[in-house]
Amino acid sequence: MINTIEKQSGKSFTLRKGDLLTVIDPKGQQVSDMVLFNCHDTNEKISAGKSMDFEETILLTTGNYLWSNRSQKMMKIIEDTNGRNDFLLAPCSPETFSIMYKHDGYHPSCLENLYKNLKPFNIDLDQIPTAFNIFMNVQFHSSGKLSVLPPTTKPGDYITFEAQMDLIVCLTACSAEDSNGGSFKPIQYTIKKTA
Amino acid sequence: MINTIEKQSGKSFTLRKGDLLTVIDPKGQQVSDMVLFNCHDTNEKISAGKSMDFEETILLTTGNYLWSNRSQKMMKIIEDTNGRNDFLLAPCSPETFSIMYKHDGYHPSCLENLYKNLKPFNIDLDQIPTAFNIFMNVQFHSSGKLSVLPPTTKPGDYITFEAQMDLIVCLTACSAEDSNGGSFKPIQYTIKKTA
Repeated sequence: MINTIEKQSGKSFTLRKGDLLTVIDPKGQQVSDMVLFNCHDTNEKISAGKSMDFEETILLTTGNYLWSNRSQKMMKIIEDTNGRNDFLLAPCSPETFSIMYKHDGYHPSCLENLYKNLKPFNIDLDQIPTAFNIFMNVQFHSSGKLSVLPPTTKPGDYITFEAQMDLIVCLTACSAEDSNGGSFKPIQYTIKKTA
Repeated sequence: MINTIEKQSGKSFTLRKGDLLTVIDPKGQQVSDMVLFNCHDTNEKISAGKSMDFEETILLTTGNYLWSNRSQKMMKIIEDTNGRNDFLLAPCSPETFSIMYKHDGYHPSCLENLYKNLKPFNIDLDQIPTAFNIFMNVQFHSSGKLSVLPPTTKPGDYITFEAQMDLIVCLTACSAEDSNGGSFKPIQYTIKKTA
């Protein structure tokens, strides 16, 4: 079954250890922020700092693991047809749009969509960590300077993860103009149960 | 008054908004991990993802701000005589030494030193975020590949921060061989109260 996350929204679900999650960009040029929590203790969660440290790279793709703040493997990337993801930048939030975009008034954001969809699991706003930004194309210069370009994904590009522990997963279809080539599209995902 | 953090240890203290903190590398080639919490609500804390996002750079130095998970400014970097700091990698932990260094048995770590020194503020191990790694020299290649080189600091190099809110600060003298050119040295700091 293919699940659809409508544009500028999010969904959460659980995986058992060994399950396969495939995240698909059906139209191309669309980012999906993903956060992970240990199903049995939500104080354990995905850590960008631990993942980049243990994997010794900024750019995680096929063969790399996503690690937790407790130095445990949470997911392995099994396949990645696009190959460009980001782990540097925090989920877009209301302040992203007021401070960086100089936007007045309400704007949907990944942080809101993560928070709303994680509420049933009793996860607070302050607990939401830096996400693994699937398909996000953040370029970095040797000076350190960062720039956000449109994703390089074509329609149908996908990334597959294998759960390394029982997980709560939350995915978004990202709401930031610059991250998605100026238009908002859905994200799709499939889950392959192994137990 | 110059305060000394002995090698492979840590210290915590509070700052009021407007206070100036200067962190000094007295012998050269020594890293200091720094974490920050809002004095009045420790669910607000330093965020690498938010800081790199708002500052649009991996390499934060003079003029840059350190931001919180709630998109508030926590500190401004006023002066930085060395100019190279890291915000990518998580504090070294017992697992850093067992997994990356293949070290058997106990090894001091920044995570332990942060945890021990933050305990009086009722901050749990799981709450400790990716630190701002003062003087740490992490090089990144356009492929994303990371490598940890000795700091470029000379004896007496320092960095000065201005607190943008009332803060709990914890600093370490880092315990990882590769981050410190193979030897462990103290870190010093001074606080200039403005109120």
